[in-house]
Amino acid sequence: MIEFKQFYQRIADSKLSHWLETCPAQLTQWRKLHAHGDFPKWEKVVAKMPTVALDVSDIHTQVMFGSGEQLDEGQRAKVGNLLKFLHPWRKGPYQLHGIHIDTEWRSDWKWDRLLPHISPLEGRTVLDVGCGSGYHMWRMLGEGAELVVGIDPSDLFLAQFSAVKRIAGDPDSIHLLPLGIQQLPPLRAFDTVFSMGVLYHRTSPIDHLIQLRDQLSKGGELILETLVVEGDETTVLVPAGRYGKMNNCWFIPSSKALKLWLEKCDFRDVRIVDESDTTVEEQRRTEWMTHQSLADYLDPQDPTRTVEGYPAPRRAILVATK
Amino acid sequence: MIEFKQFYQRIADSKLSHWLETCPAQLTQWRKLHAHGDFPKWEKVVAKMPTVALDVSDIHTQVMFGSGEQLDEGQRAKVGNLLKFLHPWRKGPYQLHGIHIDTEWRSDWKWDRLLPHISPLEGRTVLDVGCGSGYHMWRMLGEGAELVVGIDPSDLFLAQFSAVKRIAGDPDSIHLLPLGIQQLPPLRAFDTVFSMGVLYHRTSPIDHLIQLRDQLSKGGELILETLVVEGDETTVLVPAGRYGKMNNCWFIPSSKALKLWLEKCDFRDVRIVDESDTTVEEQRRTEWMTHQSLADYLDPQDPTRTVEGYPAPRRAILVATK
Amino acid sequence: MIEFKQFYQRIADSKLSHWLETCPAQLTQWRKLHAHGDFPKWEKVVAKMPTVALDVSDIHTQVMFGSGEQLDEGQRAKVGNLLKFLHPWRKGPYQLHGIHIDTEWRSDWKWDRLLPHISPLEGRTVLDVGCGSGYHMWRMLGEGAELVVGIDPSDLFLAQFSAVKRIAGDPDSIHLLPLGIQQLPPLRAFDTVFSMGVLYHRTSPIDHLIQLRDQLSKGGELILETLVVEGDETTVLVPAGRYGKMNNCWFIPSSKALKLWLEKCDFRDVRIVDESDTTVEEQRRTEWMTHQSLADYLDPQDPTRTVEGYPAPRRAILVATK
Amino acid sequence: MIEFKQFYQRIADSKLSHWLETCPAQLTQWRKLHAHGDFPKWEKVVAKMPTVALDVSDIHTQVMFGSGEQLDEGQRAKVGNLLKFLHPWRKGPYQLHGIHIDTEWRSDWKWDRLLPHISPLEGRTVLDVGCGSGYHMWRMLGEGAELVVGIDPSDLFLAQFSAVKRIAGDPDSIHLLPLGIQQLPPLRAFDTVFSMGVLYHRTSPIDHLIQLRDQLSKGGELILETLVVEGDETTVLVPAGRYGKMNNCWFIPSSKALKLWLEKCDFRDVRIVDESDTTVEEQRRTEWMTHQSLADYLDPQDPTRTVEGYPAPRRAILVATK
Repeated sequence: MIEFKQFYQRIADSKLSHWLETCPAQLTQWRKLHAHGDFPKWEKVVAKMPTVALDVSDIHTQVMFGSGEQLDEGQRAKVGNLLKFLHPWRKGPYQLHGIHIDTEWRSDWKWDRLLPHISPLEGRTVLDVGCGSGYHMWRMLGEGAELVVGIDPSDLFLAQFSAVKRIAGDPDSIHLLPLGIQQLPPLRAFDTVFSMGVLYHRTSPIDHLIQLRDQLSKGGELILETLVVEGDETTVLVPAGRYGKMNNCWFIPSSKALKLWLEKCDFRDVRIVDESDTTVEEQRRTEWMTHQSLADYLDPQDPTRTVEGYPAPRRAILVATK
Repeated sequence: MIEFKQFYQRIADSKLSHWLETCPAQLTQWRKLHAHGDFPKWEKVVAKMPTVALDVSDIHTQVMFGSGEQLDEGQRAKVGNLLKFLHPWRKGPYQLHGIHIDTEWRSDWKWDRLLPHISPLEGRTVLDVGCGSGYHMWRMLGEGAELVVGIDPSDLFLAQFSAVKRIAGDPDSIHLLPLGIQQLPPLRAFDTVFSMGVLYHRTSPIDHLIQLRDQLSKGGELILETLVVEGDETTVLVPAGRYGKMNNCWFIPSSKALKLWLEKCDFRDVRIVDESDTTVEEQRRTEWMTHQSLADYLDPQDPTRTVEGYPAPRRAILVATK
Repeated sequence: MIEFKQFYQRIADSKLSHWLETCPAQLTQWRKLHAHGDFPKWEKVVAKMPTVALDVSDIHTQVMFGSGEQLDEGQRAKVGNLLKFLHPWRKGPYQLHGIHIDTEWRSDWKWDRLLPHISPLEGRTVLDVGCGSGYHMWRMLGEGAELVVGIDPSDLFLAQFSAVKRIAGDPDSIHLLPLGIQQLPPLRAFDTVFSMGVLYHRTSPIDHLIQLRDQLSKGGELILETLVVEGDETTVLVPAGRYGKMNNCWFIPSSKALKLWLEKCDFRDVRIVDESDTTVEEQRRTEWMTHQSLADYLDPQDPTRTVEGYPAPRRAILVATK
Repeated sequence: MIEFKQFYQRIADSKLSHWLETCPAQLTQWRKLHAHGDFPKWEKVVAKMPTVALDVSDIHTQVMFGSGEQLDEGQRAKVGNLLKFLHPWRKGPYQLHGIHIDTEWRSDWKWDRLLPHISPLEGRTVLDVGCGSGYHMWRMLGEGAELVVGIDPSDLFLAQFSAVKRIAGDPDSIHLLPLGIQQLPPLRAFDTVFSMGVLYHRTSPIDHLIQLRDQLSKGGELILETLVVEGDETTVLVPAGRYGKMNNCWFIPSSKALKLWLEKCDFRDVRIVDESDTTVEEQRRTEWMTHQSLADYLDPQDPTRTVEGYPAPRRAILVATK
């Protein structure tokens, strides 16, 4: 059974200890009332992950655990099938005992774009809001973070993360909690907070920025990534209906408008460090994510437009200090 | 003491009766913990308002109670002084026993602009969100509304409203509660909901629209008035700092963007029925509001700009159906 | 549908108005989560009760509504069958349109024993804790009480009460709420509080006395009736297992011990006004309560003992002032 | 500052981990709202306790930490004065760096009376309800308990305990929380629960027994000590006013009645293992507790009676299994 005792023990005597005032009660509620109906099945998959000691591992240049030589072919096939049961895999890729999980996203490309622009993570306590299966969390750990906590309300992502973590030997410096950011008290205790791919899903982008700020220590750093449009400080696209077939997109500002919003929320040293169109090479259908992907969301006649006629996805990364 | 028993009794057997599940507890909390420090003084002023039977009254073409002939000059002077103690008076004007309360705003002008465009209020249960001292509430009653409820978190406005209501003979069809809209459960019971001058103060305009929708019966009507800028569906001004010296302005969309937002929040038949620049004749310093007013917020060199350089205040009225 | 709007309206402007801070929310919760599975059926029975204007009624010497002449024989049979559907009827008797509901208890006998000893109920606001189907509540009203509120967590009793109340023309001075006393805030507003047949069911008799006290106005009167045993101030029977086949009996003190407990809980003028063995004439099986009754609970060889060998039921009535 | 992080960390991965759902929030509330006004002063005293490594210690036959030779005379005098500042010391005695804290109670005598009758504490998780300064907690640890948790709402006792614990080197197997038992969720996780000197202070002894039961694992053991009177199963003294000058005494049953109550609350194997009159040698005024003590509570003419005329204190120890 996926439990959070290791997490409670890890934070009990840390600067995150106040989180114990709300977090265990919320996670018990989640388990009782909100966990996905298939979650017990997913937990069984996680429990079957191999715990053999790893010959090699790398979280600095990729997320790789085990060369594959410690499992025989039958074992590897079995592990591969179990991992496939946790379909769809969106963020990655992962190399697990020689199994290559080719995820929908080349999340390593995003990582490479942002890493040069952020403060070194060495020794930092880090929060990843909307962390998905946790790919970037491993990379944060690979950069020397002391403690990495991810939150994401999707239970499937918790299962995927837990499978990888079990293979990795259950390190106590990395934890994913099935919570939304609005469930967090203002901890004011993280050195770095990431929010990537979340803001455009929120009905209130300003409150999202305030919530992120409330998690940071004074002087801490925010890395914010979201969809943007071209335009000036007063340009904000609110799609009337769906955007790229997603029905939960609210505010897509220009990067300049977003910079202004961050400043209005009392962030300082706000920098737009990257702005890129999302390509069908970076986000695409694979064997591990067989649903529709970016190519299906774009107008076949004009790939600079979504099927609804909006500008095709473009993403900006902003870095700011509290 | 200003109490809400009359209100509870009025709604107990009405379609608003479910409100009793939260409202009395909230108002008791408000009294114990949140009421303004001067509120007891203001209550004393209210208690001294004359309760003499009125010779004339008019809430159809103005807000007028008593010709003035029922009070002698000394009494009238005393009542006038008491009312002045409740300074500043922002929304009006009122005619009370011959006393002319010349408020900062000519709220009657706004009323005249919107009245031709809304469904007749005859027999309706109406909510006025951000009602101020309640000027428009009286006008709603004057149009035949069966029950008018206003909410506004400012305790001074509650005192002003209570003073007027006492003079008016304490009718049980009009009530002001010192609550913010986020304190209301989704009542889904009002035939008409007004929100005027509120949206640009909210960090989350979308959540404000959803909250307004949650108060309406199916088929009910929303009247929304807020600051707007010129522009198309993607134009939204978020002032970096103050706007017209106000430090709590967040989203000022174009009226087209606002229309789109309403549609996205599942309102239908959305119409922009008025769009007007606010003039220094409509909002200005008076004997009853001696602080700064619009003239002070505009650039002396260029009255089409605020002192911060933003477009001068312009307001739109939109009407929509749930 | 059985609703409580009439009650809310009745108390909104009374000295019980503070009850609105908790009561409507609790009753909504009760309806959603706790109401008996058969309650909707019982409500249908209530809805079918005749609402014909009554030719005669008497709540002073009995509980009688309608001579029976306003219904024809078929109607009367139908009403009788509907009322039988609400079986078992424990407290009574009732005379409804000529139908004699011969209940398990001759509750009128208890009433006759206590009435001479209590303060006149004329004009009083009265609470009856553990009121059952409400027989005594009608008698309280018959003595001139201004408002009678009963509480009892049994939903069947609420249905029985509602049937009688509907026949009686739905007076707004008498209300039964499906609540336990521990759900009441300290209202400190009732002139008289009755607790009859409740104390021996509570794990904490002292807390029960404190809760009763918390409902009374200063100077108000408590009428307390419960099982007692012979003995002095230190005699308290706690049945090891069942008592008279009831498995929820806790403390059965002597009347002297009970008097001392009341004094310890700051009641004054505590008087033991009656102490009587319960007879098989007062509590017995009838056509309207066909389950076991007192005769079945007593040792056939020795009717001074229960089947478990404890002293047979004996009841005391104490009157005390706050 | 006295914190509870060590406790949270200790239980996070234990069978008490569910306690984290309520305990941290309660202790934060306690600190903010309920801590004694002098608590910060007491914390300063605790912070000044010497942390020198101990040459000797004994918690098996007494509670002794340090021979005294590691402190010079001046240091010892200073520590003694600091400990005196935490006056009055009720439960003990303690030997701390050669300082003999001669407490009001010879709690070691009670320990000697009960120890032969209880299940060995080796390896057990133990709760001490109403633990006072924690004397018996140390003795439990001395018998090999794996984890000892005490609860007592008195903040002075928390300070006394914390002073001793600091001198003892802050072991992580012993913790005192400033909570009452009614604040505990039903943990059903302790192997042994002690409640000594608590029951007669509760308005509801039955609910106390149920709360104790709710803390025990199936098969766990309760040790219950309280005041008793002579008598049979129906004898219960409820003092009308004070008892031995204490104004918060409620139920003082005979030991036979208490045994029956335990059985009624579904305890089994209930045994009365000791019943003793409390002597003025066991409870008396000392240099470390200079207020009134037992001798002052007894009738000078007849020491078998309290000053109020009740039987002098007599205590029973009962052992029972869940």
